[in-house]
Amino acid sequence: MNPIVPRQFHGIAWLLALALSLPLLAHAAEPLASWNDGPSKKNIIEFVQAVTDQTSKDFVKPEERIAVFDNDGTLWSEQPMYFEVLFSMEEIKRLAPQHPEWKTTQPFQAVLENDHKALAASGMEGILKIVGATHTGMTTEAFDDYARTWLTQARHPKTGKPYTEMIFQPMLEILDYLRSQGFKTYIVSGGDTGFMRAFADKVYGIPPEQVIGTTFVTAFSINDGKASILRTPKLAHNDDGPGKPESIDAVIGRRPILAFGNSDGDLQMLQWTAAGPGKRFMGLVHHTDATREWAYDRQSQIGRLDKALDEANKRGWTVVDMASEWRRIYPYDDATPKQVQ
Amino acid sequence: MNPIVPRQFHGIAWLLALALSLPLLAHAAEPLASWNDGPSKKNIIEFVQAVTDQTSKDFVKPEERIAVFDNDGTLWSEQPMYFEVLFSMEEIKRLAPQHPEWKTTQPFQAVLENDHKALAASGMEGILKIVGATHTGMTTEAFDDYARTWLTQARHPKTGKPYTEMIFQPMLEILDYLRSQGFKTYIVSGGDTGFMRAFADKVYGIPPEQVIGTTFVTAFSINDGKASILRTPKLAHNDDGPGKPESIDAVIGRRPILAFGNSDGDLQMLQWTAAGPGKRFMGLVHHTDATREWAYDRQSQIGRLDKALDEANKRGWTVVDMASEWRRIYPYDDATPKQVQ
Repeated sequence: MNPIVPRQFHGIAWLLALALSLPLLAHAAEPLASWNDGPSKKNIIEFVQAVTDQTSKDFVKPEERIAVFDNDGTLWSEQPMYFEVLFSMEEIKRLAPQHPEWKTTQPFQAVLENDHKALAASGMEGILKIVGATHTGMTTEAFDDYARTWLTQARHPKTGKPYTEMIFQPMLEILDYLRSQGFKTYIVSGGDTGFMRAFADKVYGIPPEQVIGTTFVTAFSINDGKASILRTPKLAHNDDGPGKPESIDAVIGRRPILAFGNSDGDLQMLQWTAAGPGKRFMGLVHHTDATREWAYDRQSQIGRLDKALDEANKRGWTVVDMASEWRRIYPYDDATPKQVQ
Repeated sequence: MNPIVPRQFHGIAWLLALALSLPLLAHAAEPLASWNDGPSKKNIIEFVQAVTDQTSKDFVKPEERIAVFDNDGTLWSEQPMYFEVLFSMEEIKRLAPQHPEWKTTQPFQAVLENDHKALAASGMEGILKIVGATHTGMTTEAFDDYARTWLTQARHPKTGKPYTEMIFQPMLEILDYLRSQGFKTYIVSGGDTGFMRAFADKVYGIPPEQVIGTTFVTAFSINDGKASILRTPKLAHNDDGPGKPESIDAVIGRRPILAFGNSDGDLQMLQWTAAGPGKRFMGLVHHTDATREWAYDRQSQIGRLDKALDEANKRGWTVVDMASEWRRIYPYDDATPKQVQ
C-alpha cells in the first residue's frame, strides 16, 4: 500500500479513475456495429489500437492523429451524378427566369430541357459553366443559404430520400470511433468547400474548419458600411487528385496518418498519407453492391476507381467490399443479419 | 436528500466535481498578470466573461469562440524590419555561393553588399524577389527545416535575443486566457504560413492547422516512388488587408468574435469581425514604448497604423497603449511595479 496516500483515499481515487474512463469504455464495447467481422473492420481496429496504445512502438500523439476523408462516394453516395452537380442543375432551373438567354445557350439550354445527351456533349467545360453560374456571383452567406435550402427540400431521383440521408452508416461509425480515440477528422474532397460546410457539421459531426474542398477566389468589400465576401468565378483551388495533398499541406500543415477515399481522384491523397513515417492506414470504399447502392469501378464516369485500385492491391491498402462487409448502407436501412463466423 | 443516490456517494460526487473544476479555478485567479489594470484589460475580461456566461444574453457556444491574431507587431516585434524579411536576407547570403549571378543582379547585390539604400530603392518588387528566391523552389519539408534552423541560430540586431523570444508576454497571456475559456486561437497574418508554422506551436501554443498566412502555389509529385510537395514561386494568396477576411472565410468558415491586430493591414479583419451579430471584441496593439520596444504608428513603413487607428477611435475598439498598459513586454523582461489604482 502506498504510505503517502491515506487508505480512505484509495477507494475514491479508484472511483474517480473509473468515472473518467467510462466514456472510453462505452465506445470500446462495439465501435463499428454496421461492419461485418471482415478484413476491413479488423484492419481499422488494429490500426487504431496500435497508434493509441502508449506502450506501442506505433504510438502517435493525439494532436498528430489526423484522419482525412473524401466525401462523394466515400461518406455519401454519388450516383447517378455527383449530388452537387444535381444541385447546380436544379439551381439553373430556379435562376432561369433571371437569365432568358439560357434558353438558347449551351449548356444551360440542355439543363432546362433535361437534354442529358447535349449536356454530356458539353463535357467538363459545360459542367464548370453550370457550377460557375450557380456557385459564384453572390456572397458566401447567400450561397450557404441556397445550399441549405436545396439540401432540405431536394429528394434523390432513385430513393426519394433527402441527399443528407444517403450517407454511409458504416463510415459515420468510423468517424465516431476515430474521434473517440482522439483523432481529428477532416473532409478533403473535390466538392465546393462552402457546399459541403452547409451539411457536414450536422450530418457528419465535422465542423466548418475541418472541411477542405474546391474553392473560388473571393473578394472582401464594404459597401454602405456593410461588410461582405463575394464569391467570384475564378477558380482558386481544384481539390482533386494532386490538389488533395496540396490542400492538406496548405490548410492542415500535418500529414494524415489515415486516409479514406473511393476513386482515382483520391490516389495522391492516399500516396501522400502512405509516404509518411510510422504506421499508416489507407482505405478505399469499393462500390460493389448493385442491390443496396450501386456497383461500379474501372469503367465509371463518376467515381472511377481504376489506378487507385491497382495501387491498393499492390501496396496492401484496405479495400472495403461494400456488398459483403457492410451490414447496412444508409442510416435508414435495416441491418442485414450478422455474419456467422 | 436525494433518495436515489445513497449518502456515501454524495461526498464522492462533490470531490469529483471539485477535481474537474480545479484547472479552471487556477486560471481564473489572475488571467492577465502582465497587464496593468487599465481599460484594455477590463475590456478583454468583460468581453470574455459575457460570451462564456451561460446565463448572459451574449453567450456564445464554445465551437463559435473563434479568436484571430495578426502576428508581426501583434504577437511579436516587427522592427527594424519584419523578421521574415530578415530571414530572407540572411538566406540570400547563405545561398549566394550557388548563385554567382546575384553578385551583379539587384536586389540580390544590395543584400549581399548590405546596401540598404539600393535595397529600399528596389521597393516591394525587390522584397518579393528576395522572398521568392528563399521561400520557393524547394519542398515544404525542406523550407520548414531552413526556417527552424534560422530561428534557432539567428539573433536580433538590437536585443541580441533569438527572434522567438521577442514575443509579447501580455499577448501570450491573452492566448492562454482565451483557450482556458474554450476559445480556439488562430494566427491570421501576412507572413508565410510555412514560416510561421515553424515556431507557432512551440512559442504560442498555436498548432499548424490554426496558422493562416500568405501561401504559394504548391505542386505534388512522386519521383522514384518518393512523394513530395514543391513550393513554386507563384503566389496563391496574399494574406494582408482584404486577404485576411477572405482567408478566414475560406479556411475557418466561421466569423471570429475576437480579432487583434496592430496595423492598417488588419483593418479589414477587424471590420469583418465587427460586422457579425452579437458581442464582439476588436483590439489593436499600439506601439507607444520607445524605451522597452519601439514607438511608431501613422508614419511608419513597417506596421503602419493610421486608418485602422482612426476607425478604432471612431468605433470604440480597444487600443492597447503598450507603454502604460503592459507591465512587461517580453517574457525575459522584468515586470514593472504594478500600477497604484
